[in-house]
Amino acid sequence: MISFEKAQEIVNHEISSLIINREPDELYQPVQYMLSVGGKRIRPAMVLMACSLFSDQISNASKCALAIELFHNFTLLHDDIMDNSALRRNKPTVHEKWNRNIAILSGDVMSILSYRFIEDCPREILPDVLSLFTDTALKVCEGQQYDMNYESRNDVSVDEYLKMITLKTSALIAASLKLGSILGGAQAADSDLMYEFGKNIGIAFQLKDDILDIYGDTQKFGKRIGTDIIANKKTYLILKALEIADAESRRILGKLISTNDTNKEEKIKQVIGIFNRFGIKEIAEAKSWEFYNTGLQAFNFVSVEDLQKKSLRDFARQLMERER
Amino acid sequence: MISFEKAQEIVNHEISSLIINREPDELYQPVQYMLSVGGKRIRPAMVLMACSLFSDQISNASKCALAIELFHNFTLLHDDIMDNSALRRNKPTVHEKWNRNIAILSGDVMSILSYRFIEDCPREILPDVLSLFTDTALKVCEGQQYDMNYESRNDVSVDEYLKMITLKTSALIAASLKLGSILGGAQAADSDLMYEFGKNIGIAFQLKDDILDIYGDTQKFGKRIGTDIIANKKTYLILKALEIADAESRRILGKLISTNDTNKEEKIKQVIGIFNRFGIKEIAEAKSWEFYNTGLQAFNFVSVEDLQKKSLRDFARQLMERER
Repeated sequence: MISFEKAQEIVNHEISSLIINREPDELYQPVQYMLSVGGKRIRPAMVLMACSLFSDQISNASKCALAIELFHNFTLLHDDIMDNSALRRNKPTVHEKWNRNIAILSGDVMSILSYRFIEDCPREILPDVLSLFTDTALKVCEGQQYDMNYESRNDVSVDEYLKMITLKTSALIAASLKLGSILGGAQAADSDLMYEFGKNIGIAFQLKDDILDIYGDTQKFGKRIGTDIIANKKTYLILKALEIADAESRRILGKLISTNDTNKEEKIKQVIGIFNRFGIKEIAEAKSWEFYNTGLQAFNFVSVEDLQKKSLRDFARQLMERER
Repeated sequence: MISFEKAQEIVNHEISSLIINREPDELYQPVQYMLSVGGKRIRPAMVLMACSLFSDQISNASKCALAIELFHNFTLLHDDIMDNSALRRNKPTVHEKWNRNIAILSGDVMSILSYRFIEDCPREILPDVLSLFTDTALKVCEGQQYDMNYESRNDVSVDEYLKMITLKTSALIAASLKLGSILGGAQAADSDLMYEFGKNIGIAFQLKDDILDIYGDTQKFGKRIGTDIIANKKTYLILKALEIADAESRRILGKLISTNDTNKEEKIKQVIGIFNRFGIKEIAEAKSWEFYNTGLQAFNFVSVEDLQKKSLRDFARQLMERER
């Protein structure tokens, strides 16, 4: 199987040589911009890695990898409008750089373009690929809607949160691995196991993200701490604390996350204080590793020689052990 | 071939019995709302009529007809956000009834759902159908972008306008007829002729719309006159007048359509005065009939018995002769 670095290199090459030969520029420049702004290309790389697990021929998979990356960037583009975000990966968001209408429409065109790349997959697997892709796309939108619903609710449960991130984040990771497997010629049982693998590690990665927002290594990477707390986001950590902390701490926490009045530094300090008192970081880490292990178990059952699985296993581990 | 009324009835039945068995409601209620608000179902009816031209079996086509109607309504939903429209078919638009973010996201989900219905078409034609659908979807977005570009330009030519409406409006009508033909088992030559038919009558209908906005029968239908003029829209009539009127009239017209300061009644009166002086209505009507006839010629070449073509021919004629 190819390594993540190799897969990433192929994806970056595909993207940089992608010429969308269509007009008008006002519509397609934001698409190119979103793609050029970068990101780690985790999802499309997963398509290629999964494909290479079952086949030495991975050239078939690069169009579908692009489709996944386009779709992912479409969701980021529209999410940025909905969240009123000014920056994405330290660069101006599309609605800031151009305007809101162009951001809506170029997002629309990006989601449709992703289907243009899906079309290119071999005829005999097209129905399965198309069905998986559309089902996943719906799930991602549904997850985003739950996320928006939760903003104005104060009674979100941990289970509801897990359901939301399963849709919003992990469905696309699961689909990337399954899609790559189908393209590599995997049997249905194996591609379903790859989906389970992706679904569970996808949840694990999101929990890890939630942890890193507060306990990440800011020294090394210069990323600010506690952005989720400032944004009053209901992350796993917040919801877990609201579940298990004592009445007084829950009251304070509930108040803190429903206002923007508190001084930012003070707010972060108070929330972290409560987290530390109730061991929230450790609980979140255990939960994240639990999903990770469930995912790995599914992966272990995939009917491919164990040695072949090394790159993907290493990569998943890397994502779990990252410090930002 | 089935009549338009019959096709419309089938489409309305399909839509009213459509249960989108997915959650959350906040996301799917606006989808159901958009579909329930109605419209004449011209495009999906065209899918069914075209299919019935080549086959007695039209049940295959109803899912694709739904896909077309869903996609059309998605474009209306997002256009309404971009245009800041408060009403659509005399009912509140989605962003007014719910909010802007829900309108963006439910539009996204609507466009993806349209692919869900495309998936259901027979395997052997899926690649062709998918390719046509996606290409059309891109064209519609491109047309919308040109339309937005033209808002801030004062040098739009009649040809540019025709290109824009070909993308924004007539591509979907053309695709509806071609899609129905493919589903009915038409040969490539015939389905291409159906596309040409649809493309040209689509342009003709839009020109007719432009004319009706000013010269429509308001008495009978209570629709207001001159909404395009008030909105400073660069319709065929305005652009033609800017092309052929004398220098002084062009100056006045140019000034009128770049401001919102003029009294509305006065503005409409002045613009219509210029139109009447230079025979703009007659020129637009001649152009509309020219496209209509070009379309009909393509239709005449379709290798189906002439008698079979009656419903579609009558329907196209009806659309041309409507007074609102």
